[in-house]
Amino acid sequence: MRVVETFAAARSWRRGRTSLVPTMGYLHEGHLSLVRIARERADTVMVSLFVNPLQFDDPADLDRYPREAAGDAALLEDAGCDVLFAPTLEEMYPAPPATRVSVADLAATMEGAHRPDHFDGVATVVAKLFAGLQPDTAVFGRKDAQQLAVVTRMVEDLSFPITIVPGPTRREQDGLALSSRNVFLNAEERTAALAISRGLMAAAGACEAGERSAPVLEGLVSGEIAGSTLRLDYVELAAAADTSRMTVLDRPGFLAVAAYAGRTRLIDNVWLWPDGTADTGALLEGPSVLYQGGI
Amino acid sequence: MRVVETFAAARSWRRGRTSLVPTMGYLHEGHLSLVRIARERADTVMVSLFVNPLQFDDPADLDRYPREAAGDAALLEDAGCDVLFAPTLEEMYPAPPATRVSVADLAATMEGAHRPDHFDGVATVVAKLFAGLQPDTAVFGRKDAQQLAVVTRMVEDLSFPITIVPGPTRREQDGLALSSRNVFLNAEERTAALAISRGLMAAAGACEAGERSAPVLEGLVSGEIAGSTLRLDYVELAAAADTSRMTVLDRPGFLAVAAYAGRTRLIDNVWLWPDGTADTGALLEGPSVLYQGGI
Repeated sequence: MRVVETFAAARSWRRGRTSLVPTMGYLHEGHLSLVRIARERADTVMVSLFVNPLQFDDPADLDRYPREAAGDAALLEDAGCDVLFAPTLEEMYPAPPATRVSVADLAATMEGAHRPDHFDGVATVVAKLFAGLQPDTAVFGRKDAQQLAVVTRMVEDLSFPITIVPGPTRREQDGLALSSRNVFLNAEERTAALAISRGLMAAAGACEAGERSAPVLEGLVSGEIAGSTLRLDYVELAAAADTSRMTVLDRPGFLAVAAYAGRTRLIDNVWLWPDGTADTGALLEGPSVLYQGGI
Repeated sequence: MRVVETFAAARSWRRGRTSLVPTMGYLHEGHLSLVRIARERADTVMVSLFVNPLQFDDPADLDRYPREAAGDAALLEDAGCDVLFAPTLEEMYPAPPATRVSVADLAATMEGAHRPDHFDGVATVVAKLFAGLQPDTAVFGRKDAQQLAVVTRMVEDLSFPITIVPGPTRREQDGLALSSRNVFLNAEERTAALAISRGLMAAAGACEAGERSAPVLEGLVSGEIAGSTLRLDYVELAAAADTSRMTVLDRPGFLAVAAYAGRTRLIDNVWLWPDGTADTGALLEGPSVLYQGGI
């Protein structure tokens, strides 16, 4: 595995079809599953590792964002990464950037309402990675559903010749979606958090059985959460193409939820199609290993 | 010369180093000089011809924007263009675009103050052409100085591996900068308009003689215009890197002016450097030929 710090060096190592997996490091099994998806589809697998200041609303949140560069590199080499692009802050932003890429209509609700500038920061840095690294495909996890929608739309609108490949959410064996934030959960919160995936699985099951009403599907999630100690932030059935709220599942969409377990904010979702199919993610074969620090 | 309508087809005709000249068609000698600059530097010369709705604030202005596709194609073939990318509106915007690229800090003053959304539209469509066509270089005229600054900064900020090559302003033999709008000028306005280039040449001369004060340089232009029947919109010495107004010429910059000759708004500029050098453009060897319609 080559470790490079500049866009030019990363581009020079592309051979055949190149797939990019953008990350902010501090990797878990969910990230590595995206690298394996890239490995199956590309001649060259490139992973970017950069903690992007643009997508943090809170400078303190950026400061305490955990880094495990050496551990990440070892995990990526094992997972089949060919080129690790780990730019310095100076390579990414030699001057304060004046350019913003915004997909405003898709970024206002759900996670965008919680973090107003977040998706502008994501769209800008992903556009920069795409422009500077010129991959043929890029893999993004379905766990960050709205991010996937924003990136997919940005690529279409700007005519990047890049295919966006979605990766299923990875779950612990009891259903909890993998997240670096899970290490913040105490035992009681960890148990309560399962209400989220229980609700989503119930909704996916109802969809497979013919249910198409958004209020009913959303209600299956909010009902589970109401019966737990979690505090619901939102649950929404959103269109995959534009993240607008749907009243009926008549286009591809995702049922997204955000809830607090104590002070830890968790997000999760299932992807649903009008024909009743669902992508609820994939369970790990054993417990995940997370760094001890957590984010 | 290949004429293609899709990004994929245009990309497929790249051979060796490719240089792009983005245009909105209705070409004059100024555009063709940019094509010749591209021809000298590249193996493949690509010209895009698309009247971009995003950069028009006024729909009526867009509707009356003149088109001369057949004439443009003949001129481009003569000038050495290899690939003419002339996309349909459907190829460019299969859906209403949700993505905006903005270089806000560079786009607020001068032309941006006159046309508030104009440079967002320019930055967005140029980012799309760069992302979808993947040229190695792109040629932009110095006549649109603020546009050149916006595009240059966008390329740096988004790490496009594209070199921006500036093309000197082309001038009629009496100094008037070429513009499709010149056909709107009656004989009296045409004569009055020369105050603009006279003022700019005086300022460039003063700079070469050692003058660095922005108010003095600007005053040489506004003085010429005050002595004419033109109505001044602005005259500003702006930094090339960020378009901020300078009080002293201590960085590369351009002295930009906008003024009305009757109802026709004209813009022009000279580029100045702190060492006293100037790019005032190049005079044509004979009178230019413009389409009769004008814009």
